[in-house]
Amino acid sequence: MRGPRDVRVEHRAKPVIQEPTDAIIKVAAACVCGSDLWPYRGIADYGPEARMGHEYVGVVEQVGDAVKTVKPGDFVVGSFIASDNTCEICRAGYQSRCVNNQGVNAAQAEYLRVPLADGTLVATPSMPDAELIPSLLTASDVLGTGWFAAVAAEAGPGKTVAVVGDGAVGLLSILAARQLGAERVLAMSRNPARQALAKQFGATDIVEGRGDDGVARIKDTTGGLGAHSVIEAVGTQESMEQAIHACRPGGHVGYVGVAHQVQLKGLDLFFAEVHLHGGPAPVRQYLPDLINRIWDRQINPGLVFDLTLPLEHAPEAYQAMDQRRAIKVLLQP
Amino acid sequence: MRGPRDVRVEHRAKPVIQEPTDAIIKVAAACVCGSDLWPYRGIADYGPEARMGHEYVGVVEQVGDAVKTVKPGDFVVGSFIASDNTCEICRAGYQSRCVNNQGVNAAQAEYLRVPLADGTLVATPSMPDAELIPSLLTASDVLGTGWFAAVAAEAGPGKTVAVVGDGAVGLLSILAARQLGAERVLAMSRNPARQALAKQFGATDIVEGRGDDGVARIKDTTGGLGAHSVIEAVGTQESMEQAIHACRPGGHVGYVGVAHQVQLKGLDLFFAEVHLHGGPAPVRQYLPDLINRIWDRQINPGLVFDLTLPLEHAPEAYQAMDQRRAIKVLLQP
Repeated sequence: MRGPRDVRVEHRAKPVIQEPTDAIIKVAAACVCGSDLWPYRGIADYGPEARMGHEYVGVVEQVGDAVKTVKPGDFVVGSFIASDNTCEICRAGYQSRCVNNQGVNAAQAEYLRVPLADGTLVATPSMPDAELIPSLLTASDVLGTGWFAAVAAEAGPGKTVAVVGDGAVGLLSILAARQLGAERVLAMSRNPARQALAKQFGATDIVEGRGDDGVARIKDTTGGLGAHSVIEAVGTQESMEQAIHACRPGGHVGYVGVAHQVQLKGLDLFFAEVHLHGGPAPVRQYLPDLINRIWDRQINPGLVFDLTLPLEHAPEAYQAMDQRRAIKVLLQP
Repeated sequence: MRGPRDVRVEHRAKPVIQEPTDAIIKVAAACVCGSDLWPYRGIADYGPEARMGHEYVGVVEQVGDAVKTVKPGDFVVGSFIASDNTCEICRAGYQSRCVNNQGVNAAQAEYLRVPLADGTLVATPSMPDAELIPSLLTASDVLGTGWFAAVAAEAGPGKTVAVVGDGAVGLLSILAARQLGAERVLAMSRNPARQALAKQFGATDIVEGRGDDGVARIKDTTGGLGAHSVIEAVGTQESMEQAIHACRPGGHVGYVGVAHQVQLKGLDLFFAEVHLHGGPAPVRQYLPDLINRIWDRQINPGLVFDLTLPLEHAPEAYQAMDQRRAIKVLLQP
């Protein structure tokens, strides 16, 4: 990405092992993230030549001398943030904030260098069927992020969960909330295709309102109290306020939308009296469990990909997501 | 209070039962709250004639027809917010946000009307010794609020807890954190008298820095990671940011300072990745437990009162707290 709305597919040297903890992966599938749209839309600045992509699955081609848990030939899923998975923060389940964390980038490519391979990558039991690849790819970020949002919102048995945001993360957080046992999931969406997918992922109710109107509808369906759990998967001022106001006192808001340009009023938050938790999802924590659920066909998160393009057509993938013509685009190198 | 820095003690008619759920209490002791200083300093406007005081203990003089759990002659402690203690929000432990909640006011007086008496008041086992009255009075707000802050910050065994704010609530949150089993409690204070009280309440370390410097010191003493739990008991922009930055990713910030004029930056909060919870403390939830701990002399929170004045000297009480000459002033009707 050379600047806003300027994505190009160009030849670059194949990545090489730089540290003994690195692995080189032949990418089987990558995709475009909602967060990739922030620089695409000029809201964040990633510099004059950003190598894009942080969601990936693929086959290990080469590992550094220190790598012990994955080997060439393994099919692996990795988190969008590399972590050592051994520090105190990782052990507490926050690998995305590992003391040695490094962002993974340039995954929208044929080959990818993954730092801290032992702490970052998880191998599948064997080579997956082709049909499982989209679902495994979601575990790398979008499913893992939706899962974290549902955990942060304390979705679980007996809970009514409201979901603000009908992008891929929001939709997969519906799936996560239901897997975690939530009784009711209220999906906020005005888009028929996304509403249909929300239902497929387990939403029990569709709420069409937005802002204050959306909040009023959530309150109406929860005896005036608000939802026990609210998932925020957008990252705007309106969506954060909507999430906080839709939650009952003592309830939990899990937020994973990258909160650019958001300012929370202290007094508003004080009197909302909700629990608020979120940030970059510690996807690595959930990978073994998510891979198992996908492997056993308990869940089919790959349904969020409604467009698949060859890697060379990456610019079109960005356009389709920017214009909301596609929920999520899979790129095949 | 007739306006900023204008507190007067005036004769008013004795309160009477207005609703069958009311009780009238002969106030044994009341006090001045840090939150009373907001209108005193002109930061909040309580109108041309605010009847002040929401912390109280006393003897029930009269009850309405519907009151069942307390009776005339009982010595009672009540929360600063009246609650029915039966609604779904109360049952979830958030009585301060009861669907029928009402603020208690005019407790800095000889007699007080308490609404929703059954849900708001807790009787002591018998008439307390005079020496217990200050401690029982703290349970009404300042101890209960410090306790909630410690619970919200998930203070407990194995945890390092940092406390931002050396007012009465901050000091009592130290006591609470230790009672909840916290291993280390880092008290942030530059005032020798308050440092001494912090240690008496169980602080293991005193941290003198403020703002970024204070954050750096907390990080230094926690292996660079930040505290597991941070209690915020001030309510300013600086104190909230200090609390959030002093907490490790995945850690818990409990905040009870009334967050006037605070704006939290979304992106800062997102990357801090802490749990944030706070608001008006559901003191009623903790009253039975706190009364027991006081009754059994396990804790002596009444030590926060470093000045006792007759009720007629209320203006002096406000002055002393405003000028930080007193930590907390007890008023005797």
